[in-house]
Amino acid sequence: MFNKRVKIKDLLATDATGQEVTVMGWVRGFRNNQFIALNDGSTNNNLQVVVELGMLDETTLKRITTSASIKVTGEVVPSLGKGQKLELKAKTFEILGDSDAEAYPIQPKKHSLEFLREKAHLRFRTNTFGAVFRVRHTLAFAIHKFFHEKGFVYMHTPIITASDAEGAGEMFRVTTLPFDNPPRNEDGTIDFKEDFFGKSTNLTVSGQLEGELGATAFGEIYTFGPTFRAENSNTARHLAEFWMIEPEMAFCDLEDNMNLAEEFIRYIIKYALDHNREDIEFLAQRLADEEKSLPQDKRSEMGLLEKLDFVVNNQFERITYTEAIDILLQSPAYKKKKFQYDVKWGIDMQSEHERYLVEKHFKKPVIVTNYPKDIKAFYMRVNDDGKTVAAMDILAPGIGEIVGGSQREERLDVLTSRMADMHVPVEELSWYLDTRRFGTVPHAGFGLGFERLVLFVTGMTNIRDVIAFPRTPKNAEF
Amino acid sequence: MFNKRVKIKDLLATDATGQEVTVMGWVRGFRNNQFIALNDGSTNNNLQVVVELGMLDETTLKRITTSASIKVTGEVVPSLGKGQKLELKAKTFEILGDSDAEAYPIQPKKHSLEFLREKAHLRFRTNTFGAVFRVRHTLAFAIHKFFHEKGFVYMHTPIITASDAEGAGEMFRVTTLPFDNPPRNEDGTIDFKEDFFGKSTNLTVSGQLEGELGATAFGEIYTFGPTFRAENSNTARHLAEFWMIEPEMAFCDLEDNMNLAEEFIRYIIKYALDHNREDIEFLAQRLADEEKSLPQDKRSEMGLLEKLDFVVNNQFERITYTEAIDILLQSPAYKKKKFQYDVKWGIDMQSEHERYLVEKHFKKPVIVTNYPKDIKAFYMRVNDDGKTVAAMDILAPGIGEIVGGSQREERLDVLTSRMADMHVPVEELSWYLDTRRFGTVPHAGFGLGFERLVLFVTGMTNIRDVIAFPRTPKNAEF
Repeated sequence: MFNKRVKIKDLLATDATGQEVTVMGWVRGFRNNQFIALNDGSTNNNLQVVVELGMLDETTLKRITTSASIKVTGEVVPSLGKGQKLELKAKTFEILGDSDAEAYPIQPKKHSLEFLREKAHLRFRTNTFGAVFRVRHTLAFAIHKFFHEKGFVYMHTPIITASDAEGAGEMFRVTTLPFDNPPRNEDGTIDFKEDFFGKSTNLTVSGQLEGELGATAFGEIYTFGPTFRAENSNTARHLAEFWMIEPEMAFCDLEDNMNLAEEFIRYIIKYALDHNREDIEFLAQRLADEEKSLPQDKRSEMGLLEKLDFVVNNQFERITYTEAIDILLQSPAYKKKKFQYDVKWGIDMQSEHERYLVEKHFKKPVIVTNYPKDIKAFYMRVNDDGKTVAAMDILAPGIGEIVGGSQREERLDVLTSRMADMHVPVEELSWYLDTRRFGTVPHAGFGLGFERLVLFVTGMTNIRDVIAFPRTPKNAEF
Repeated sequence: MFNKRVKIKDLLATDATGQEVTVMGWVRGFRNNQFIALNDGSTNNNLQVVVELGMLDETTLKRITTSASIKVTGEVVPSLGKGQKLELKAKTFEILGDSDAEAYPIQPKKHSLEFLREKAHLRFRTNTFGAVFRVRHTLAFAIHKFFHEKGFVYMHTPIITASDAEGAGEMFRVTTLPFDNPPRNEDGTIDFKEDFFGKSTNLTVSGQLEGELGATAFGEIYTFGPTFRAENSNTARHLAEFWMIEPEMAFCDLEDNMNLAEEFIRYIIKYALDHNREDIEFLAQRLADEEKSLPQDKRSEMGLLEKLDFVVNNQFERITYTEAIDILLQSPAYKKKKFQYDVKWGIDMQSEHERYLVEKHFKKPVIVTNYPKDIKAFYMRVNDDGKTVAAMDILAPGIGEIVGGSQREERLDVLTSRMADMHVPVEELSWYLDTRRFGTVPHAGFGLGFERLVLFVTGMTNIRDVIAFPRTPKNAEF
């Protein structure tokens, strides 16, 4: 057994003064040939390890470089240094792995996020990314805990799918056919019957339709899995591969859906604040420092912690799409022709419109409901006005759309006629329609883009910085 | 708000006698025009709803068919029926959705698992699959809880990857290039620079290598995500798309790794036994009934509950590969030439050999360690004998390999020379080797196939019956 160590987070959380412990980790700094800042990834707080002068020979001292790994056994003693209560007085010291300080790409200085993105395989070893990915972990756990405690069943909906009916975006093909000489039908088209699954298959864009199958059996289910878009969007908000959470609830209408989504978002943010306070404090400081270089009017009105506390403690604003359009039409921005895109009832609101509503007008998260049916998906429930659907989008300051959901159309006749109108193949989705044929129920659900949530909670601004190894156009490194 | 209901599981767990409650669910049975067996997916236990004679008209009574959805408000009263403490005396009754009893594919009788596999979109509404997928949920939650409480960081390693270096199996190509007229280089080969990611990409076969990047920063991480094999294996144990859990731990050797894996498996099985007892009891009975039709010597020696309790309460057997081969060579099966494949040191043990060890010889889970290096992956740590590697496989009765893991080769020179021997491209994996260049540490990890675990815990025998929508050769329905 090698793993007889105490994690630094646990050590710093207890009063272990006088005890002998073993720690292992990577060197973050070394000064005066005496004081090692040791990090083991459990927290951003380094443990100060003190090697007394004369304890180690010159050769060993030279090997204590940034990112070298060491094992130290010693006595926990009160620290005289600033910002730490404890330190470790080394008794035995061992270098586990050297690190050539010249060659190591991450120097003990501030690197740009862009530079670290190129070194994504090592960026976890920095304070910023250490904090981001520990917060990401906690959010993921809180999501499972929230749904588990409510009795939702976690469903793994398929990643590879033959369905291209949802129309949520461009898709990646999954195939084992050879490009060089693919099998062809007599008419020259590709013979996908020869492909691995006996048909043309893609990566999923959403688990919702399969989720509805689960909800109409288990009552309440959720998914949490990867989803894909083959869109050539090189922005700070888009990924080709991202993780999505999709709860789906039987016996649930639009209002129940909004209530759940709001409770959910508040719960997981509070959970992160309670369990990763020091990581979020670090990220709040990082953001504040970064914004210092911006002109006053580009800075956030609230600090990160203030913003998160605000979301946890305040109801989201709820308005209809029609009200949203009215607010935009009455806005100084519209009257002064500050919007690039026109505003009128029926438009698919652009990012500038959503940001105006959330960041300028309401200054908090906003739930917009009852969108025009022509700009929304076929499965959303048609309202009695015949013009709108029971959709809801949650817009968050700085992020834009973070949740998209709806009550689903449970009436078979309305659904099939809408599918026909929108050229969605009824035959291919016959399995889906069975939920409406056999004991249909009012039901609803939503999708939350996980990385957008992580952006919101960490205060990071580029989505590539909150997923371990981002997949974007022309980029699939590591 | 529509969702003002009590879940049947919660109702049956409390003494709500005398209270007025609303329930919603699907009809499982209806007899004497009076007694409805109502299920809402929260449990296999139906709630008996009593509609007094004369309360509903003929037309409504006829609509109370299998899988019709209803909403009932009434008074909770003690039940005189067998096997239930409570029932609901209906005061108001509403049909939410009809179900044409003739057309509904799942009749109130026993269907074969094969038939239900064809109706995978509705099989969640049966007792067997209700229990299986609730247990699957609980196991997934227990996995997150186990690692979270130990301070592991949950990492989402990439699904789409350009790396084909691990050699774990055949892969699915991911592409947006057109088959009909793909871009070509001057020499006629396909120009993957024009593909979405600017190179040839595949679906991941394992997140381990990326996981090691996380472990050497956070100390301990785990993954839980989908993995893929494009193997033409049409067996009861193989899926083209399955979910895998891969923990990876810095400062950890083979023994630590085995201890963790064993603690982990015991924890999650105990968690399921504690939280889904009634589902597992149902599945145990199902298995016992099924085995009645088998000849005595084909039946399990232990019932499902007995087997799971045994695993929770007993250490796994630990033997080296060399010892395993000796046991096989000494076995009556070998001496009587009952094995189809030959046994000698150096073979990759076949299923028949593993089953002999686990089911006949030890009659419990077995951890086999220190396999010949020639049959194992390049990243496994070479033992001092130069012939074996610090690998460990956990073999489970009835399932075979459920966990595969190893201590990783942390010595850069040993690793690169082994990669060269095995024709693994060192240059392409330079990012991976950086973990060995900069502060390398002893580390280890393992992979657990989630569906094989679910098979083990539910007593199901075909892996297609424990994942919602199985992907297998020539099959990607729903």
